[in-house]
Amino acid sequence: MNDQVATAEGHEADCFHDECGVFGILGRDDAAAVVTLGLHALQHRGQEAAGIVAYDGTQFSVERHIGLIGDTFTKRSVLDRIPGDRAIGHTRYSTAGGEGLRNVQPFFAELAGGGFAIAHNGNITNALTKQRELQKRGAIFSSTSDTETILHLIAFSEKQRITERFIDAITQIEGAYSLVGLSQKKMIGARDPLGIRPLCLGDLDGAYILASESCALDIIGARFVREIKPGEVVVITEGGIESHFPFEQPSPRFCIFEYVYFARPDSIVEGRNVYEVRKRIGEELALESPVEADVVIPVPDSGTPAAIGFAQGADIPFELGIIRNHYVGRTFIQPTASIRHMGVKLKHNANRRMIEGKRVVLVDDSIVRGTTSQKIVQMVREAGAREVHMRIASPPTMASCFYGVDTPEKSKLLASRMSIAEMAEFIRVDSLGFLSIDGLYRAVREPGRNNDSPQFCDACFTGDYPTVLTDQGDNKDNVRSLSLLANNG
Amino acid sequence: MNDQVATAEGHEADCFHDECGVFGILGRDDAAAVVTLGLHALQHRGQEAAGIVAYDGTQFSVERHIGLIGDTFTKRSVLDRIPGDRAIGHTRYSTAGGEGLRNVQPFFAELAGGGFAIAHNGNITNALTKQRELQKRGAIFSSTSDTETILHLIAFSEKQRITERFIDAITQIEGAYSLVGLSQKKMIGARDPLGIRPLCLGDLDGAYILASESCALDIIGARFVREIKPGEVVVITEGGIESHFPFEQPSPRFCIFEYVYFARPDSIVEGRNVYEVRKRIGEELALESPVEADVVIPVPDSGTPAAIGFAQGADIPFELGIIRNHYVGRTFIQPTASIRHMGVKLKHNANRRMIEGKRVVLVDDSIVRGTTSQKIVQMVREAGAREVHMRIASPPTMASCFYGVDTPEKSKLLASRMSIAEMAEFIRVDSLGFLSIDGLYRAVREPGRNNDSPQFCDACFTGDYPTVLTDQGDNKDNVRSLSLLANNG
Amino acid sequence: MNDQVATAEGHEADCFHDECGVFGILGRDDAAAVVTLGLHALQHRGQEAAGIVAYDGTQFSVERHIGLIGDTFTKRSVLDRIPGDRAIGHTRYSTAGGEGLRNVQPFFAELAGGGFAIAHNGNITNALTKQRELQKRGAIFSSTSDTETILHLIAFSEKQRITERFIDAITQIEGAYSLVGLSQKKMIGARDPLGIRPLCLGDLDGAYILASESCALDIIGARFVREIKPGEVVVITEGGIESHFPFEQPSPRFCIFEYVYFARPDSIVEGRNVYEVRKRIGEELALESPVEADVVIPVPDSGTPAAIGFAQGADIPFELGIIRNHYVGRTFIQPTASIRHMGVKLKHNANRRMIEGKRVVLVDDSIVRGTTSQKIVQMVREAGAREVHMRIASPPTMASCFYGVDTPEKSKLLASRMSIAEMAEFIRVDSLGFLSIDGLYRAVREPGRNNDSPQFCDACFTGDYPTVLTDQGDNKDNVRSLSLLANNG
Amino acid sequence: MNDQVATAEGHEADCFHDECGVFGILGRDDAAAVVTLGLHALQHRGQEAAGIVAYDGTQFSVERHIGLIGDTFTKRSVLDRIPGDRAIGHTRYSTAGGEGLRNVQPFFAELAGGGFAIAHNGNITNALTKQRELQKRGAIFSSTSDTETILHLIAFSEKQRITERFIDAITQIEGAYSLVGLSQKKMIGARDPLGIRPLCLGDLDGAYILASESCALDIIGARFVREIKPGEVVVITEGGIESHFPFEQPSPRFCIFEYVYFARPDSIVEGRNVYEVRKRIGEELALESPVEADVVIPVPDSGTPAAIGFAQGADIPFELGIIRNHYVGRTFIQPTASIRHMGVKLKHNANRRMIEGKRVVLVDDSIVRGTTSQKIVQMVREAGAREVHMRIASPPTMASCFYGVDTPEKSKLLASRMSIAEMAEFIRVDSLGFLSIDGLYRAVREPGRNNDSPQFCDACFTGDYPTVLTDQGDNKDNVRSLSLLANNG
Repeated sequence: MNDQVATAEGHEADCFHDECGVFGILGRDDAAAVVTLGLHALQHRGQEAAGIVAYDGTQFSVERHIGLIGDTFTKRSVLDRIPGDRAIGHTRYSTAGGEGLRNVQPFFAELAGGGFAIAHNGNITNALTKQRELQKRGAIFSSTSDTETILHLIAFSEKQRITERFIDAITQIEGAYSLVGLSQKKMIGARDPLGIRPLCLGDLDGAYILASESCALDIIGARFVREIKPGEVVVITEGGIESHFPFEQPSPRFCIFEYVYFARPDSIVEGRNVYEVRKRIGEELALESPVEADVVIPVPDSGTPAAIGFAQGADIPFELGIIRNHYVGRTFIQPTASIRHMGVKLKHNANRRMIEGKRVVLVDDSIVRGTTSQKIVQMVREAGAREVHMRIASPPTMASCFYGVDTPEKSKLLASRMSIAEMAEFIRVDSLGFLSIDGLYRAVREPGRNNDSPQFCDACFTGDYPTVLTDQGDNKDNVRSLSLLANNG
Repeated sequence: MNDQVATAEGHEADCFHDECGVFGILGRDDAAAVVTLGLHALQHRGQEAAGIVAYDGTQFSVERHIGLIGDTFTKRSVLDRIPGDRAIGHTRYSTAGGEGLRNVQPFFAELAGGGFAIAHNGNITNALTKQRELQKRGAIFSSTSDTETILHLIAFSEKQRITERFIDAITQIEGAYSLVGLSQKKMIGARDPLGIRPLCLGDLDGAYILASESCALDIIGARFVREIKPGEVVVITEGGIESHFPFEQPSPRFCIFEYVYFARPDSIVEGRNVYEVRKRIGEELALESPVEADVVIPVPDSGTPAAIGFAQGADIPFELGIIRNHYVGRTFIQPTASIRHMGVKLKHNANRRMIEGKRVVLVDDSIVRGTTSQKIVQMVREAGAREVHMRIASPPTMASCFYGVDTPEKSKLLASRMSIAEMAEFIRVDSLGFLSIDGLYRAVREPGRNNDSPQFCDACFTGDYPTVLTDQGDNKDNVRSLSLLANNG
Repeated sequence: MNDQVATAEGHEADCFHDECGVFGILGRDDAAAVVTLGLHALQHRGQEAAGIVAYDGTQFSVERHIGLIGDTFTKRSVLDRIPGDRAIGHTRYSTAGGEGLRNVQPFFAELAGGGFAIAHNGNITNALTKQRELQKRGAIFSSTSDTETILHLIAFSEKQRITERFIDAITQIEGAYSLVGLSQKKMIGARDPLGIRPLCLGDLDGAYILASESCALDIIGARFVREIKPGEVVVITEGGIESHFPFEQPSPRFCIFEYVYFARPDSIVEGRNVYEVRKRIGEELALESPVEADVVIPVPDSGTPAAIGFAQGADIPFELGIIRNHYVGRTFIQPTASIRHMGVKLKHNANRRMIEGKRVVLVDDSIVRGTTSQKIVQMVREAGAREVHMRIASPPTMASCFYGVDTPEKSKLLASRMSIAEMAEFIRVDSLGFLSIDGLYRAVREPGRNNDSPQFCDACFTGDYPTVLTDQGDNKDNVRSLSLLANNG
Repeated sequence: MNDQVATAEGHEADCFHDECGVFGILGRDDAAAVVTLGLHALQHRGQEAAGIVAYDGTQFSVERHIGLIGDTFTKRSVLDRIPGDRAIGHTRYSTAGGEGLRNVQPFFAELAGGGFAIAHNGNITNALTKQRELQKRGAIFSSTSDTETILHLIAFSEKQRITERFIDAITQIEGAYSLVGLSQKKMIGARDPLGIRPLCLGDLDGAYILASESCALDIIGARFVREIKPGEVVVITEGGIESHFPFEQPSPRFCIFEYVYFARPDSIVEGRNVYEVRKRIGEELALESPVEADVVIPVPDSGTPAAIGFAQGADIPFELGIIRNHYVGRTFIQPTASIRHMGVKLKHNANRRMIEGKRVVLVDDSIVRGTTSQKIVQMVREAGAREVHMRIASPPTMASCFYGVDTPEKSKLLASRMSIAEMAEFIRVDSLGFLSIDGLYRAVREPGRNNDSPQFCDACFTGDYPTVLTDQGDNKDNVRSLSLLANNG
């Protein structure tokens, strides 16, 4: 699975689109510059647009731009427009064009009690239902994002103080959310009661930071303090930090797919180093699905750590047999029919000398629609591989995500309509092995999946959704998680 | 050394800037679309601008744009403006802004006998001298590129036919060049007599292709035919291909640094797979500079193949202990003083769990100014490394390149002013090892350097320039290879 | 007074900024293209940004752009994004930059009962007060425009049907407004009870049109039907048109300054041709302030019709003694000190041969700050005028407008702090004459001003505001009509 | 005839495209800022692109932009890139898009003796012939402009000093040219031997200025010194000015159409005020073609001065019966068929109250294809005119211009294929009158045309071309003055 997809054939992307990243800091001059750096480190969680809201003691300033952080927020002129010692930011997947800016976060509103900004990673599964209720009460929505629903719930709250209003709002919503909010005096962080999406607390010379992943602390040399707990609301002021736990505590259900694919390998999330987990996944896979082979080759970059683990576990040489072109932009040539039939290799190329005449183990992180795997296998075969064995660093993905990941509808997922043997035939490999669900749990140092009370959200592998899906009605199998529901992350 | 540098501190880039890539095809509808794909595969040879000239039987069309191929030439509207069954293209490092387009290749001129376009990888070492002569004869230059000098020499030639005029021109120039030219009837390819820069011939269903590297053939599924020979001029028409050898043949002197850094690992240049050479470099390095250590960590991405070779040679585990952020754009934040002092890690981050408490071998491809190495070593130390040993996959770079690589002036090269012991102290490592020049030759499967008649151009390591440097006069030590001389590649 | 000002000196503009223009059509394919033409004819009412909302039976589409209509809405690609047989549009003065788009009208909201769009010419004088009330009830504002207040009042209305909700909203607001609204089934037009701003009804082959001025009907060959009456609400559907009169009828108070400056000379507003009124103003002025002179010269373009009237009335030759440069864009050179002292004539130049040695009558429409008049008089003197007599086609402007015109605060108005004799000295003329207020009323064919019940809004000349100014509190003398209050038009 | 045409119907423009304007200054800090202002005053001579070359004692800087001066050259960042105390500029009609910049002047070349820049108003009638000769000698052209030909002739000259080389070049060219050149030490001005295009000399506090029209001196308060004489070459240095007369002096033949249409009314060219000439044209027309009528109405803006003259001469009231919309941009709506049939009035609207029931005299400057006149007459008739009499302020235009004006080919000129009676019928007027050629000469204060030795170039009216037309061969009747020949102005 690949994080940046060139759809040379105009097909739908054969990957899970990344989610969003959030970052905030309070108590540091040039707060927006620090947020810019933090968002740059979180760029893998959303490449299409970003925004920052800052407060300078007098007024809130908002900048929102389409494009990479490094192309938009690093201009002096942009940063000069968002002064202040506190700021929050958001980076997101999806939405292009001028009007698309409407959906770029953070959202900001001038409430009766003062300004409030909010940035969100996750997805509210009753947002549409709540939106309709709010519209009946007179709310006007200016975006199609579920995050705006939270803002209206805060605006309509009959509580007095912003913290109470914020808590009043989140207790009305369902789904997955890691939130960072900013009022004149406070920065608020919150995770949903299951803690599906990550959020951690950092410290930079006394200034508090909230960030989706620890790699966003590393880039600025900030100290990792701790994770925000599932269901916790932290309220940060100049005077310090206080915690609220407005929910009865269910068991945490962190998204296990963050370890497989989303999080950056150098991050530590929920106490585990992502790279280490991925290597252990490879080692588990070598145990579960061993194969006689000459070389282990990753599908770069996402399959690389598991391939290293597999190679070390199986004692087969690890080689860069596929070279990735990092210059692939958002879109690529809309080719003529003749070029379409050429089987253009925009993103990956086989390194023939490493492949020719060899028995190859290919390691990738997951299979979505299967079309990318098909092409990579064909490329490796054309480069002269004697045998091709595919090993996947996760169980088969067979259900849509409704918690902030833009997945195809269930029927488009290869694993939802084929057995493993059929899939092996479809992608034309000599053997195909997925990691077992228990193997995945072992890789995160659990003894295995506790089916009575699973330790993680693994709905994409099991269909076992840890929350109600109010907006879906009876429809969760066939609907791609779209429109309002998937427009933010 | 790194190919895309974020100069957070406003310093000059601490790397060798990439050279240029050229690509041409004759005899294929949608020639420009094919060239676009070829240039995309050559993007690592120049990221700042690109151009394509096509001929459709009636007229030549020119498109030149600042930016990545995938962001500029993949628009239908752009490709529609360059129709025809023959086209040549160029991708280049350097030059931004509107007027900068003047220097973007290919260059095109309407000569007395018809139109002619030319694209160039390399550097003409007597271009300035020739330009002055030509100006005295009445030539008007519209760029600051040495490539235009070649075009004027063709225009002023008293020969009749374009092939003769082309040969007349190149026999007056010195230096390094791989050229692709296009007239109404002919596509011409040429390499300088020493064959310093690469150029190969491919075939796509009967259409001939000229390309800097074989990876540009792979992307479109074209067949690799052979390298163009040093000093060879190939003239391709619809009727076929013919070869000319206008030079007395000196011994070839291919740029050995192409193996170390420039070429893509999946390319085959001068008969050798680049990835294999780099792995052997790592193996040689492990033999020449062994060290007791717990982990081998590449400085990604350029140090990775050598690190794999080193790890396999030394039997030390290979780990991704440094994670690279691929979203770094051309420029990054011009930070405030306070942020500048934070030691921001825009491009690389240590993966602490792989480093903490360990004896680390870092493998990088080369050291230019040494400032990047300093920072990386510091980052690895801060991540808790017990010992840091740096191994460099090439000999010390101590002399400027005048053959198409934008290098700092000699005095800025760390190796030109420090011993290896001093360099080790400067970058603060426990030990520092460079590959020997003979080790490098062994990695390319030579028995060692033949000092009487070296098999490669290795001037950046030895100062032994294989051509006269007319424009330099007595000045070659102190002048950065700039202005006219380095403005193309 | 001039409608497009180049502030070479960085001073504040010395003119009244134009208001806004609105246009809507229901029942015509390509409705958005027709609206584009209508807005082009209304461009003099606002040059900085424009928007169109269309409905195609299925969904509403919105396009809003900074710039002239002719530069933004005439692209096929833009028009293709706003299909449908009904559309409303708005052109406005002020607001630049990306975020500025937030304030560009029409505004659109998805209400509980369906979508609704609204475009507004005028200014709500209790908008800020209403906004605070609405925020306390939970409303989130996404712009700083008073027009959004109306939309929230509609959203919060407890009435059922859109017409009732619309009327419920406008009966809560004070000030000046000509509104055009669009729901799925209805186009609604409304004027405030005093009818301060214009709005007329047209017919194009059976499709109804609402437009600020009749010139917007002429451009497309539509038939002028009638003015919308003060306090009237018209509801247009495919089935026809119906009228509502929700207000007790006060006497109409149309803005008399529309005749002096805002409206286009070829428009007919409130039954009078604007050009004819302006000529009669010149004739009245010739009677009230006669002068012995050789030539009558307009300050182009706004002073031209009155100058023609003056010349004919006084039987003095009319000549173009000042030439206007129409290529002056929004901003012009931020000059160096040395250029600033040159007295650059960006917009007007004296036509010396028409001036030299002559006794000149200059005719301009009004005096705001007086700085422009100063410069023009100086220019005319330097061109050799023997005498300069200034005649102004309106009474002295001595009070701010709170009804949709961006005027300076009262203290900046020259006439609010100087007698006519002082003003004459300030702008250095041999004589200065303003039209009397009764003369102005005579020019519009009234016998004179009825001071007990004035026939027009003439607050800018008299300070006699026809509505309460809730948001101003006690402050109406010193506050420039800014922020929320002046951000739309 | 109108200077800025909106081609709503996609037809070719029905007007003569404006020529170019040139401006230069030597000896004034911020020279480029002064040139910017001068070009702004000359904007009517070319609206599509502009360029400035400056020299600061060390190097030449070039800025060239598509768009109005006021939109492009007034940015501080642009001006900061062209420092120096001497600069020349050019504004031009035609050519859009990125590659179009190639043709934007001034052109600059680094010659053997130093840099040289040149800006040109006019057209070289043997440019193509010379270009072919030069290409055979080895010249490479980087534009399609005839001006570059002059630069190559200078480059190839065997003379030593720049003044000699410049004179050597212009003695080889034919046609119309007013040139401004800039070397390191000198600013050179030149007019062709017939002085077809204007060029005058000004003085600003001791700094010399060259400008196409005197209005460009007025804008900055510079003093008009004199016209450059036909065939004169002036060489301006810090030390002063010297004159050369390299041509045997034929009789001057200034373009009489400059008075009719091109020049700005406030300019003085060849000793005559343009506005005065136009008024006298109207007076002559009233004498030559009298008519009983109620009102004289100009087709604005170009017909206005002649209409004033006509009205005063005929003692009929002058009224603004047609209102012009000055907001028409370069292109306007590409309308659907249904809108095309509406007869949209983008640029002109009838002011019905001034027309209804009246006998109208319309005054326009010229008739090109006649389609614009047709539409205006129809509009005036629809507004209720009882009679429409058209009076044209010049003789019938029946031949193409080869001296810098982009005219349609001869066969498209209405007067070349119809009698006046037929033309009257074609545009549907009750009467049609053109000024006689002698009447035109009288308006410029000549006793009449001296047919043996005409005092002006009046080829567009008479077909009497004052120079050979080498590039035209036998073709001058049928070829539109296009390609190389018309690409500059």
